Amino acid sequence: MRTTAQNAELALLLEVAGTPKPGNVDRRREYDDLQFEHFLAGAVGARPGLEMVAEGEPLGESFRRAIEGMAEQRGGNTQFGALLLQLPLVAAAGAEDGPLSPETATAVVESTTVADAAGFYRAFEAVDVAVDDPPEDMAALDVRRGSDAVPALEERGLTLADVMARSADRDGVAREWVRGFERTFAAAESIESGDPGRPVADRAADAFLELLAAEVDTFVVTQHDRATAERATERAQAALDGDVDTEALAEEFVAEDVNPGTTADIVAAALFVALERGLEV
Amino acid sequence: MRTTAQNAELALLLEVAGTPKPGNVDRRREYDDLQFEHFLAGAVGARPGLEMVAEGEPLGESFRRAIEGMAEQRGGNTQFGALLLQLPLVAAAGAEDGPLSPETATAVVESTTVADAAGFYRAFEAVDVAVDDPPEDMAALDVRRGSDAVPALEERGLTLADVMARSADRDGVAREWVRGFERTFAAAESIESGDPGRPVADRAADAFLELLAAEVDTFVVTQHDRATAERATERAQAALDGDVDTEALAEEFVAEDVNPGTTADIVAAALFVALERGLEV
Repeated sequence: MRTTAQNAELALLLEVAGTPKPGNVDRRREYDDLQFEHFLAGAVGARPGLEMVAEGEPLGESFRRAIEGMAEQRGGNTQFGALLLQLPLVAAAGAEDGPLSPETATAVVESTTVADAAGFYRAFEAVDVAVDDPPEDMAALDVRRGSDAVPALEERGLTLADVMARSADRDGVAREWVRGFERTFAAAESIESGDPGRPVADRAADAFLELLAAEVDTFVVTQHDRATAERATERAQAALDGDVDTEALAEEFVAEDVNPGTTADIVAAALFVALERGLEV
Repeated sequence: MRTTAQNAELALLLEVAGTPKPGNVDRRREYDDLQFEHFLAGAVGARPGLEMVAEGEPLGESFRRAIEGMAEQRGGNTQFGALLLQLPLVAAAGAEDGPLSPETATAVVESTTVADAAGFYRAFEAVDVAVDDPPEDMAALDVRRGSDAVPALEERGLTLADVMARSADRDGVAREWVRGFERTFAAAESIESGDPGRPVADRAADAFLELLAAEVDTFVVTQHDRATAERATERAQAALDGDVDTEALAEEFVAEDVNPGTTADIVAAALFVALERGLEV
C-alpha cells in the first residue's frame, strides 16, 4: 500500500505525464526552459513536505518545505499550485478523522492559522510564481513580498484560509480551498469512471479538457487576459465536441503561449483524491 | 539538496523518461500491458526500500522492500534489475565512508551476507522476473523458488555477492556487481559530459545506445537468444554510426519484441551516480 505522501507524489507525476493536455507540459510536449524532467525532479523534491503534512505537521511550514524541495531543479516553478491544492487534502487524508471528503478537507482549511499563512508567504521566496498585482488595500500582503509580508499578516490576524478567501475571486486554486474542493472531487470522479483500459494519466488529461471547457483558467487570465482565457475555454469545448483535434489544439496553445496551469493544478489534486480512494495504476 | 534516496528514485524516473530508447518504454513509447505510468508508480513505490538502504539497513531486506513497493502497480516488473544495480551504490553513497566510487560500492558488495542473499530471493516472490533456467548444480538455488531456496543458501553459506558471482557470466547486472560497476561509472561520465542543453533523460538515452552498441544485452539473450541479442547490438552501432535513424530503430525493436532491459538497468544506476556527483536536472 502506498502511503498518503506517496499517493500525493504519484499524483503530481501522473498529472504531468498525462497527454494530450493542450498548453501544458506532458510526456510528449515540453518547452526549452521547462522540460518534462523538471517536473519529475520537482515531484521527487516535494515529497518531504508532503510527508510532513501527512504526518500532521503544520500546513504552512509543510508547504514551504514542499516548495523549497520542488524548486531544486532548473525549470523553476513546476507545480506550486498543484501542491497548494493538494496540501489540505493530504492533511485530511493523513489525519484519519474519517475518509477524505470535501468536509474533512474543508475542516483542515478552517483550522489553518496565521503561522500557516506565514509559511505560505515564505514559500514564495523559493520560486518565481506568476501572480497579478494585488488590490491596493492588499499591497502589504503581496505574496511576492515573501516573509516581508509576515508582520502585516500577523497584525491583521489572517489565517491561510483568510488569505485564500481574499484571492478566491481571482485564483482558481484559492477558489477550491473556499468552495469545498468542488471541482477537484468532480474531476476525481471523472478520472475514476474513465475507460479502465486507458492509462490513468491520460484519463486525467481528459478531465483536464473537461475542466477547461467548463471554466476559464485563472492562470491564463494572469498570463494574458480574460478574453484569451475565455477563448481557450471555448477551444477546449470545441475539442470535446470533436470540432478540433486535441493534438492540434495542443499545438495551437503552444503557438499562442497559452498555459492553463490552474486547470492542471486541479487535475493533480483530483488524481490524489482518486488514488486515495483506491484508483489502481 | 535531494537525499540519496531521492536521487535514486529520480534516477529511476529519468531512466524511463529518456527517449528515444529503442525497445524499451520511454516517455513517448509504451506497451498495452506495460505503460509509462507503471514505471512512475514503481519508482514511487520503491522509495521506502531505497530509504532503508541509504540509512544503513541490510541490503537484502531493503531490496525486498523496494521490490514489493515497486510491484504495487498493474504493469508487473518495471525496474527490478535497475534497483538491484542501484542498491549497493545507494548503500555506498549513504554510508559516507568516502565519496561514491567503484571502490566504495565494491566494499558494499563484499560485505553482503547470507541474510542479504535471502532477502534477494524473497524479492522474487513479489514480481515475475524473466530468468533462464539455472545450471543443473544450481537448481536448488533457482531464484524463482523465492524463499523456498533460502535453506539451500544457508546450507551453502552463500552471500549475495556469491550469488551474483555465480550469475555474472549470464547476467549483465550481476556482472556489474562483480566487476566494480565499470560500465555504470563509464555511462555516468558519458551522461555528465553530454550536451548541457539536452534533457538529462535524453542524454541518458544516448548513453543507453552507446552501452547497447558496445555489449550484448543479457535480457535480450534470455528473452530471445544470443543471435538476436548480437543483432540488436549491431543495430545499435548502426544507429550510432548514423546508418539507421534511432526512432526507426525503436519501431524495429518494438516490432521484433526486443527489449534491452539490462542496458536500461545500467543507465538507471549511472543516472544515480551522476546525480550523486552533482549533475543538475
